[in-house]
Formats: sequence, structure tokens, C-alpha cells
Amino acid sequence: MISVAEARALLFDLVAPLPVEEVPLAQANGRVLAREVTARRDQPPFDASSMDGYAIKATEAQKDSMFRVIGEAAAGHGFSGTVGAGQAVRIFTGAPMPKGADFVVIQEDVSRTGEIITISDEPGSNPNVRAAGGDFRIGTTVAAPRRLRPQDIALLASMNIPRVSVTRKPVVALISTGDELVMPGEEPGPDQIIASNTFGLKAMLEEAGADARLLPIARDSHASLDTAFGLARGADLIVTIGGASVGDHDLVGEVAQDLGLKRAFYKIAMRPGKPLMAGRMGDAAMVGLPGNPVSAMVCGHLFLVPMVRALLGLGTDIPPLHSARLAGALGPNGPREHYMRAVVENGQARVFDNQDSAMLGVLAVANALVVRPPNDAALADGAEISYLPI
Amino acid sequence: MISVAEARALLFDLVAPLPVEEVPLAQANGRVLAREVTARRDQPPFDASSMDGYAIKATEAQKDSMFRVIGEAAAGHGFSGTVGAGQAVRIFTGAPMPKGADFVVIQEDVSRTGEIITISDEPGSNPNVRAAGGDFRIGTTVAAPRRLRPQDIALLASMNIPRVSVTRKPVVALISTGDELVMPGEEPGPDQIIASNTFGLKAMLEEAGADARLLPIARDSHASLDTAFGLARGADLIVTIGGASVGDHDLVGEVAQDLGLKRAFYKIAMRPGKPLMAGRMGDAAMVGLPGNPVSAMVCGHLFLVPMVRALLGLGTDIPPLHSARLAGALGPNGPREHYMRAVVENGQARVFDNQDSAMLGVLAVANALVVRPPNDAALADGAEISYLPI
Repeated sequence: MISVAEARALLFDLVAPLPVEEVPLAQANGRVLAREVTARRDQPPFDASSMDGYAIKATEAQKDSMFRVIGEAAAGHGFSGTVGAGQAVRIFTGAPMPKGADFVVIQEDVSRTGEIITISDEPGSNPNVRAAGGDFRIGTTVAAPRRLRPQDIALLASMNIPRVSVTRKPVVALISTGDELVMPGEEPGPDQIIASNTFGLKAMLEEAGADARLLPIARDSHASLDTAFGLARGADLIVTIGGASVGDHDLVGEVAQDLGLKRAFYKIAMRPGKPLMAGRMGDAAMVGLPGNPVSAMVCGHLFLVPMVRALLGLGTDIPPLHSARLAGALGPNGPREHYMRAVVENGQARVFDNQDSAMLGVLAVANALVVRPPNDAALADGAEISYLPI
Repeated sequence: MISVAEARALLFDLVAPLPVEEVPLAQANGRVLAREVTARRDQPPFDASSMDGYAIKATEAQKDSMFRVIGEAAAGHGFSGTVGAGQAVRIFTGAPMPKGADFVVIQEDVSRTGEIITISDEPGSNPNVRAAGGDFRIGTTVAAPRRLRPQDIALLASMNIPRVSVTRKPVVALISTGDELVMPGEEPGPDQIIASNTFGLKAMLEEAGADARLLPIARDSHASLDTAFGLARGADLIVTIGGASVGDHDLVGEVAQDLGLKRAFYKIAMRPGKPLMAGRMGDAAMVGLPGNPVSAMVCGHLFLVPMVRALLGLGTDIPPLHSARLAGALGPNGPREHYMRAVVENGQARVFDNQDSAMLGVLAVANALVVRPPNDAALADGAEISYLPI
């Protein structure tokens, strides 16, 4: 038995960052920036007024001083002249500061009669000027790799970056296996159930940045599995669900091996879960997940999402767990790392009594997996626990 | 001056939940379920084995007992006969329990010779059977409204729900205004800057579940603004950025008024920010945001995302703030609620010194807005603060 972290390390050996492609900035949110970006301009590109008011010389910014208004500077339309002693330029937020001026008296502190203004209130010491390059300068960099967020997109736009280099989205092929499965919308026979894991995993992997493709259900026959693997060709990661243990009815490994998989089984000391099958098959990484719905989804969080991050070039660091206080006591844990379905609210973690690995109803009301180390002692009400948000 | 909460309440009056549409389940992640879903089947639909082993009568589950194997039950292929005394059925995980059997001895506890098995280890008291309906029953409901997550999708699939009723995505039209702006990829003149707010807001609103459309930049002229508003027709929410204050160069309000906007200005006691303009214009809600990049993005989080949630039928409750400990001290706050750019890591909030509302570089490295109430006293290192994750 190996730990979750050891299993993850073995799975990371199966994947490498994908090639880079260019996308328009408007389509780049959530994508992984693959190459450092360098600003090609200063922002602001000029000293700019941060207020509506009058641009004057700072040395003349005193209550009761009077000025003649000689022009106007608005955003996009600077004043081309120079401000001399006793002169002012009407200025608006974002406008370039006129030559000769280095102070903006805000309009609320000024009274105006025709072309003459008087500073009617103490103008203070803040010049209300944003210095050129105060936000960023030519050469300022945005580091890669990083998954782009809305605020990154705004920053890249302001740097005048219309297209960005991002890692290609990993294509993940999802194959449910088993004679017992039918697709949602079909009428199941008396011994059958609905394929649900691939639908949940597709959603999860797409949130992680993958392009997840749901293939037809593979039946428990060589021919059907062979067809499914054929349809998966071109994927970066092939995931089968079900048929991954070593029972009589587990044909998945056999067929994958015929197709060139060097397979390995990892018996992982975790709950829920079962042995994972994994290997390289042609140009793809291949992972076989257990068929129990909750096991499959938990393995998705613990193994597939990190593999997608690695394919995206985000490396193999795992985002840190969060911490919360336990609401209610918990008995001691067994020898396997346990990922317990729970609800975390206001820093309190309530762990569900029913931890059966087939209960999707419980998983759907959970928002966290509370992580218990192997052989963890019993925990009292209020104990600090670690959790993975889901 | 009104509070952020009061402003939000006024903005909520401008929007109502949008109509409902049906989408395939595979496209439903992140959409808002609009109508309660009721399970049309039990899950499991039959008592099912949770292990690979042999199905027998529980009364006979004792060490050294012997049984004749009379058949096999696999997932998707039940055993049609009945298990009598002294009889066993080879069974695999997920298979229906045969009639007459109510216990599964796991294969590790059995030795087999031809058709005869002997229980070689203490079989324990766990019958290894999942009861029919243990996950959910006909009539179990999934409540609406809720934004669907991967685990909801898996649950709905297992309920055999191939299509779901979701709220239509709100269409948000984003209009940058100002002669000083050019689009990323253009060559700005000496007095010009790049339009960045609409790019950041588009990404933010799409994450919130909207369909955000970036319209051409409107110039500071009646004709140009009129064209932009014309292009925005059909949107549920029209957002202008810039030109929303009352300076000489703010034409946005005038033009919108000509087009039927009953406009209101809300002077909000917040930083960063400026007066917001808002109203109904034809079939749409209209909001005018300040032009400073960080102000626009913060107003997006505080006002636009909640409006999108309300349009999606998620109501007007605001997700609770998170809490963390301050790393370093902070001076007292002024009379306005302050949303300070910060980084929260491991429960520690580090607030940036530079809180200028034009600094996108600072926003891009932030992951939180620390919320300081009006007139908040100075805070010591380690004080508990509330924050909005961004």
C-alpha cells in the first residue's frame, strides 16, 4: 500500500506540460499563461490628474490665490500649452497634466467667475496627480505559469497585450465501463443503473481547465472496450471508470494492455478508493478509476485534477488544504487516509455519518472532504481538521 | 451618502429572475437549476453487493461452513434463481443480490475447490449489501434554485435526468466610454490609454454565470454613445464604464436619459468608488460604473456579480465574508467602507500599502478585498478581519 502523495507522484510521471497556443485576451480567462508577459508601455503613460479640478503650479496652491484659466485638459485631449505663474488649466480625471503644472486643486475647493478662479478652501498637500509609470513601467512582467483570473485579464489589457500564449487545454477522454450502465435518458433494465460518474467528472475536469469528452459506455467485452479506446485516440489523458480492480469481470486492463498499456496497479491507503490502474498508452496517460460513484469523484479531486494541472504546466505542487473546527466528535481512523464528506460553514466542519462510497446524495450536499491521516486518533468536538473544498 | 448594502438593495430593485430554459445535463455545470428535480427511480434500484465474493444466507455465514456454488451474479447480469440453504452464488460488486441471499462473504475469506466453497476466515457481521434506495428513493428531490456543481451533475445523472431546467444566462453588455481609450492591440495616441476594465469585467461576469458581451468603445459624443446603446439592445444588463460622475465631460447619463433611462445617482460611502448611476432603460437594467480600473473591478464584485446572481434566480443574499488575521497593523478607517486589496494566505491577510484606485498591478497580485467598516478603529497586528475572496 502506498500513500495518496506517493500515488500522485507516480501519476505525475505519466504527464508533461502540453504545447503552447495563442488565444485572444477576451478568451483567456481561466487559461494558463505559458510565457511571461512584458509590458510594452508605462501606465499611466503620462502624469495624470486623479480628480476633476484645475491644474496649477504646486508653489501657488494656497487659499485665496487667484488664477486665469487658459485652457482645458480632458482624458484623451491634453492641453498643448504651458501653465505659467498665475495660470490654471481646467482638468478632468485621467487627463494628462499640462506642462508647467504639478498640482490639481479639486473643483470643490475653487470658486470661478468667468475665466478667473479663486482657491476658496485650503487645498491640502495631496497634488492629486498620478505619476507616469506608477501602475507599471515598460519591462514590468507578469510571471508564468499562472491560471489567469479576471484581474490578470484587466492588467494584461492595460499593458496592451491583445493575445496571450497559453497552454493547450488537455483533452481528457472519459469512458464508463460495464454492462450494468445506461446513459441518462435511456430506460434501464431491471439489473441496470445510470452512468453518472463520467458526467460528474466531465464537469470537474472542465472547471480545472480541461476539455473533457464523454465517450460511449464500453460494455464488458473485448470488442466494446477496443472500440472505446479507439474513440479515445488523440486524448492526452484517457480515464476509464469501473473494471479497474482484479476481479473476474475486469477486462479493462487486459484490453488496454493489448493496446500497448504498460500497466501498473497502485494499491493506495485511502478511503474511499480501490486500486488504481495507470500507465502510458500510445501518446496518452491512462488512469483506471474505481466504479463506485463517490470513489470516482474523490479520485477525480485527488488524482485527475492534479494531473490536469501538471498537463497545463502548473507543476506538481498541490494547493494547500484549508482548516476548520470539527463540529461533533469523530472516532479514531483506520490505517487508510480517509476523505470524509462534510459541510464546512463559518469555519465549522460537520462530517456526515454516512460515508458509504456509493452515496451520491451525500456527496451532492457536501462542500468539503475532511482529510484524516492514517491511524489518526479520535477527535473531540472543536478539534482542528484539514479539508479539501469541493 | 448610502451604504454599500443600501446601494445593493436599490440595484436589486432593477432586476428580476430571467426565464427558464432546458439544457442537456452535460452542459449544465455552473448553470442555475431553476426547478426542483424529483428522482424517478430508487438508487440502488435493488439490494446490491458492495464487494466481490459469494452471496449466501446470513444465518449460514459462519467460519468453516461449506456451500455449493449454483451460479453467478455480475453488475448488469443478476442471477435469476433462488439461493437455498447450503448454496452460494458467485457475486461481483454492484450486482443485484439473488433471491434468498442477504449476505456476501468477501472472496478473501473463502477457499474454493471446483463448485464447493468453504468460509476460511471469520466473515464478520457486515453483510456487504447496499440496500435498495439507500442513496435516494423515487420522490427524493434536488432543491432549486442552486448553482450546479460537479457532484450535483453526478447525482442528477444517477437519477436519470438527461435534461434540466436552468435560468437563462443573463446577457450583460459592457461599454467602455471615453476619447482616451483604445482597444488592446491598437496604437494609443500620446494622450490615450488601453481599455482594460471591460476585459476584466467580462471575465468576472462570465465566472458568475453571465453571457458578457464587449461592445465597441463609445467616444465622448452623443452620436457615439447613441450607437453603443443601440448595440446593447437585447441585453438584460447594460454596464457603462467611465463618464458616470457629474463632470462637464460626462455625457453617458444625458444620452441614456434621452433613450428612456430614469436615472438615479447613488453616492455610496465606499472606497474605492464614486457615485454610481443606475436605472431601467427599456427592457434592461443599466448601471454606470466609475472609470478607474480598480474602482470598476471592485464595483463589479460588490454590485454587478450580485445583480447577475439575482437575474439567475439565486436571490439577493450575499455570500458571507471570510475571516482571517491581519498581518501587520492598519490605521483607523475614514467615514467610507473601504475594500482594501490584500493577499490572504494560511489565514493571514497582508494588506497592500498602495490602495490607489488606478493600480491594476496591485489588484492583479491580490486575492482578497479586506472590508473595513466606516470609522473602523485602528487594527493591531493579528486582529481578525473580514474579506471577500477575489
